[in-house]
Order: sequence, then structure tokens, then C-alpha cells
Amino acid sequence: MTEKNMFYLDNAATSPLHPDVKETMTRAFDLFGNPSSLYDLGIDNEKRINVAKQTIAGEIGAKPEEIFFTSGGTEGDNMLIKGVIENTRRDILSRSRIITTSIEHPAVKDVFKMYENHGIDVVWLPVDSQGYVDLDAFRDVMTANTILVSVIGVNNEIGTVQNLKEIGQIIKSINPRCFFHSDYVQGFMKHPVNVKACHIDGLTMCAHKINGPKGVGAVYLNRDFRIKPLLLGGGQEKGLRSGTENVLGILGFEAAVIVWKNPDIRIRLKEMKAMFSERLTKVSDVNIVSPETGSPAVLSASVKGVRGEVLLHSLERRGVYISTGSACSSHKKEKNAVLKAIGLAPEWIEGTIRISFSAVTRMSDARAAAQIIAEEIEMLRRLVRKD
Amino acid sequence: MTEKNMFYLDNAATSPLHPDVKETMTRAFDLFGNPSSLYDLGIDNEKRINVAKQTIAGEIGAKPEEIFFTSGGTEGDNMLIKGVIENTRRDILSRSRIITTSIEHPAVKDVFKMYENHGIDVVWLPVDSQGYVDLDAFRDVMTANTILVSVIGVNNEIGTVQNLKEIGQIIKSINPRCFFHSDYVQGFMKHPVNVKACHIDGLTMCAHKINGPKGVGAVYLNRDFRIKPLLLGGGQEKGLRSGTENVLGILGFEAAVIVWKNPDIRIRLKEMKAMFSERLTKVSDVNIVSPETGSPAVLSASVKGVRGEVLLHSLERRGVYISTGSACSSHKKEKNAVLKAIGLAPEWIEGTIRISFSAVTRMSDARAAAQIIAEEIEMLRRLVRKD
Repeated sequence: MTEKNMFYLDNAATSPLHPDVKETMTRAFDLFGNPSSLYDLGIDNEKRINVAKQTIAGEIGAKPEEIFFTSGGTEGDNMLIKGVIENTRRDILSRSRIITTSIEHPAVKDVFKMYENHGIDVVWLPVDSQGYVDLDAFRDVMTANTILVSVIGVNNEIGTVQNLKEIGQIIKSINPRCFFHSDYVQGFMKHPVNVKACHIDGLTMCAHKINGPKGVGAVYLNRDFRIKPLLLGGGQEKGLRSGTENVLGILGFEAAVIVWKNPDIRIRLKEMKAMFSERLTKVSDVNIVSPETGSPAVLSASVKGVRGEVLLHSLERRGVYISTGSACSSHKKEKNAVLKAIGLAPEWIEGTIRISFSAVTRMSDARAAAQIIAEEIEMLRRLVRKD
Repeated sequence: MTEKNMFYLDNAATSPLHPDVKETMTRAFDLFGNPSSLYDLGIDNEKRINVAKQTIAGEIGAKPEEIFFTSGGTEGDNMLIKGVIENTRRDILSRSRIITTSIEHPAVKDVFKMYENHGIDVVWLPVDSQGYVDLDAFRDVMTANTILVSVIGVNNEIGTVQNLKEIGQIIKSINPRCFFHSDYVQGFMKHPVNVKACHIDGLTMCAHKINGPKGVGAVYLNRDFRIKPLLLGGGQEKGLRSGTENVLGILGFEAAVIVWKNPDIRIRLKEMKAMFSERLTKVSDVNIVSPETGSPAVLSASVKGVRGEVLLHSLERRGVYISTGSACSSHKKEKNAVLKAIGLAPEWIEGTIRISFSAVTRMSDARAAAQIIAEEIEMLRRLVRKD
């Protein structure tokens, strides 16, 4: 298959490197000095990393010294959540509560599950049919002994954008020392957030969802909080994240952030999502799952009578790449936790697909792909009827 | 400064990307599919990762399914050590012993220290004046209730290569279920190891010490052992290491391994080390710290009457880059733990420098750098005498 007729629409799983990112990384191939070294080759790279921190901090209303680089979203989520819990005295922990939602990414969910198995009081917040956390239900369970709340800012499967500001206000009005974490892997650069305005203490970001390289991410950590480091060693990142800094990855990440600073990208994403939504709803028995006010980068739709996986492979033959759920969870036994949490009926769940856009997705390609998807749905339905 | 008169001899801190690695990574820029995705773009990348595992496994006598990719050496050490401890029942742990050496990299040392602070019985093995673990002393402390032994295979500061085979035999003769870990970051591809022959159960490797990219590494884990994962989430790497795989980094790592398969590289390293050693010993009051049988890639030397850091900056002006110790520990308060452990006198410790080579170091450059270092030592001594 030539590149020309490839329509990649699974950018919430991972996205292609933007040409600017490739160019930056190619130029950075020779910037090999160890940022911990005492001579110029190292110190120059340390400076470059600090500039990248400024770039990222500026996008979320944080201070550069509150940004720490990681190997990606999974490490970020694990590091922040475990970091808070492991920094809490055992006797306090045994009388504490931690709260999360029923639609978290496994990198959050599985850490909470582990602590639940260790006997910690975990509350799993329900969501409504569009994936929104019920704020009244949250007020009921948020207590003065709650030490950690983790809410996925933009959901990876259906794109719901939570009201983090109101959640943050509720948290801090009840326990100002409670740590508010948000997995923002799907939201970073796609849906603006100001961590200070939202009272967020820890935010997880990653590069490869915004046309940057895999294997690099960042966390914001409110400097009023102390957490236990996940990786011990050379003491890099002020002791919070040991390990030689991934200079090449960090510079690629920064280049991707700079690409996404262009406001035209978000406008284009919104237009593509609207176009796709309109085209698919013209097909009978197709329902849009994603909320209209959700992320402009993700569209989840349910196709009655067609299995998502069958449609995925049928589309693959025509060069259209989509996902049936979160690619990140294709290894897991537990499927469709998010779709179940929003109460989607089983006959709709099995036909749910996720279409997702990035900074390099062109409207013309999206339009062609929407047409192909509509055609394939009709074709598969004809096949089923013949059986 | 032009590239021509740069003599980079701090490859044990980090090393430049080999041209083949750059080429491989440039070609891999477009291989962006998520290895967890169900379609060909993802599956192809999963296959590429499996081939890279074969390449690495073949170099250490392991099976491909025993190789897991990480974000680097620090994660590898943390993951294996914590993975063993956290997988041990608390009641068993309280009557168990864990053993390591006094010359470990901080990524091992600090994890052991943490468990020591938690009340676990930790034995720190002393080393002799060349950094070798005293095997008789080891036999005395190795007990049937020892569940973990971690020994740095090739020391990062002085290059001592431990007798892992004999250590492994001692361990298994006393407790076959004891987990034998080796931090092999400085040894991988520079000093051959066969994990099965040495009874090693966990081995830490990383790419950026062998002219590969930063931010990627691998561990070998004996498939007869189960450990607790450090990163929870999407279930990648058979659940042992969640997080979207760093395809670009992994392919760059593999390319570096392929470069180092050429036996000429090790021959050249040995020649450069011998040449350097000979040139420096011609300078009065310079002692070679590294054992002759140590790693061919690392030469530690002590210069009496000159502070290492002063020499480092003096050499930097002339384009020669070396280290005073481990760059990885330049953030740490505790300095020179290895040099103290081998019993080096304080007047020699402060003048100790580390010179280290990689696959791209040329003999002509090494020769020129050795001459410059000798000149600068003499120059600095003249300055001191004038004071």
C-alpha cells in the first residue's frame, strides 16, 4: 500500500511524528552530552531541557520547576499516584480515602486497584451516559480524610472533558491538603487547561499523542507537595526522577508542543469531528457516543449489528485505520470498561469504534475516510443479512 | 569549537549516536503504529520489537521472551530489585536477607538503602583495592534465607569486571531460589556475559552507553521467576512493563547492538586503554586505578596534587571531555563512594579522573587526547607550585 491512500485515524492510540518533530530530532542527534556532566556539552543539554520545561509549563499555567520528564503517560500516572500514597504514613493511610472514576486509563485504574487490594478505602465515581462525573455524587464521597483524587481530564475512549475546575474546588473546599491528580494524556494541547485555576496538583502528559516521539512524557507537580520518587538512582530531576535524561525525546516532545500551539489545529480538529459525526449519523443505526462538548480529537460511534473488530479489519484493507476501543488496553482481559460505565447497551458496545485526529490529519483525508467507513458499514450489513 | 578538535572520552557517562543508529532511527521515524493496535501498522511494529529482543537475547545467552524493554538502566535496576522484593510476602521478607556490594550504581544502592530503612536485613559486600568482591566474605554472608543478591557486573567508575559465574554458583549452591541480579549497564556488549552460565536471573542493560539513544534500555528476566511490575497499566510486555513501546528507541538500541557485534571494536578499546594507561603512567605521580583485567572501555587514573574537577575544566578548554567520577552521581551529595570502597587514600581520590571509550572513539583522537591530558597535568602542577 502506498502512503497516499493511507487514512490514519487512530491518533488517540498514537500519532505520526510531525515533520517539525522529525527535523528537530534529526538536528538533536548530535546533542549527546549527559545533562548531568560538569562540562559544556552536558550543561548545554541541561539548559535545553530547562527551556523545554518552560515551553510545557507555559501551556498549562505551571512553573518550569514544576515540570518533570518521564518515559510517558504510564510512568507519569504511576509516579504521581504511587508517589503520593507511598509518601503517606501507614497509620494515616489506614484511615484515609482515595477517589477515582470508573473511566480511568488502566495506568490509573490498576494502581488504584492495587491499593484497594492492599486494604485502602477506594471510591470509584460513577459517570453519566456521556461519561461525566456526577458532581453531587462526588460531593457525597469527598471527605476530609481523602488524600488523593484522580480524574481523567479527557477520556481516551470517548473524549469526555471533565469539569476539572469544579472538581478541584470541591476537593480543596473539603480538604485543601488532598492531592488532585489528572491523567491529561489525551487532553494536553488538545483541550487547554490551567492547573492553578483548576487546583490540580499533579498532571500527566505525554508526547506521542501530539505527534511527538514515544517513550517520553512529562508530569506537572505542584511544588507545595512532596511525593516519593518511583525511580531511585542518580538523583536527576531534583531527585524526583532518576535516570539519564532522554534529551532527544524531550526536544522532540517540545517541538510537538510548539506545533500544537498553532490555534488552527484545534479549529481543524473540531471541523473534522463535526464532519465525521454528520456523515456517520446519515448511516442508519449509527449513534454518536462522544459528547458534542468533548475533545475535538476523539469521536466514538456505535454501529448496530456490526462487530467493531470486523469493521476495523475491513477498513484496514481499504487503508483506513481506526480503533475499537483503547489500543492501550488491547492486552487486557477486561474490555470496554468505559463503554460499560456509561451504560451503553451490549448490542451497541460491540459495534463501537473510535476515530481520532491529530495535527497532521487533513480534512480531505478525513472526508474520504468517513465515506469509506460509511460504505464498509453498509457492505458488512449486507453480508450479515445474506447469511 | 569545531567538531574536529573535540575529543570525547566520557562514554561511560553517555556516548554519541553511532552513524548506523542515526540512519536506523531516521528510517524508523515513520514507523509510528502502536504495537498494541490490532491492524498491520501496529502488528508490524510488534514484530520489529520481537526481532530486537532476539538480537539482544542472542548477545547474552537468553531467550527472546526473557527480554523486556525499559526506559533505561535506572528503570531496569529499580524494576528488577523492587519487583523481587514486592513479590515477596511480608512475613517471609521480615526473615530474609538481601545482599549487594559497596560499589553499586546509585540506581541499585539507593533501592537497597530504602529497603534497609524499611527494616530489611541488607548486607553490603566489601571489595578489595581493585574493586573485586571478596568471594570468601560473600560465602560467609550468603545464607539459605537470602532472597536477592545484586552485583554490578562491570563497575561504572573503575571498570572492575566481577566474577559473576563464581558468584552465581555460590548463590545457587546455597539457595537455588535466590534471585541473582546484575547491573550490566557498563558491561553490555563491552564484556561478554552468558546469563545462563552465570546463573543470573535479572540483568540490566541500556542503549546510551553503547552509542544508542538515551531513554531506552532492556532487562533480562529469567522466566522461572515472577516479579511484581513497577509500572501498571495497559499490560504491555506481558504485563511486566506497561506503557506504549518506544519503537524508535528500541530500533535505535538494536542498531547499536548490531554495531557492537563487530569484534574489532573491543580490540580497539583494549588498545586505546593500554595506550592511555602507558602514556599517563609516564607522568610522575599518576596511578592507574582500574584493574588491567577490567573493562576495556573504562580507565580510571589518579593524579596526585591536582583536583579532578580543575583538570576536567582545564581539559574542556582544549576540547577533551572526561569525568571525575560517575556523571550519573553528580547530583548526589555522597561523592566518590566507589573510590572510598576500594580504599583509595583521600589525596589520590580528589585527583581521580575517568576516561572512557566507545565504538566511535578513534585511536588517533585517543592518542592526541592522552598527550593533552599529560600536558595539562604538568601545566596545572606548575601553576600550583607557583602559588
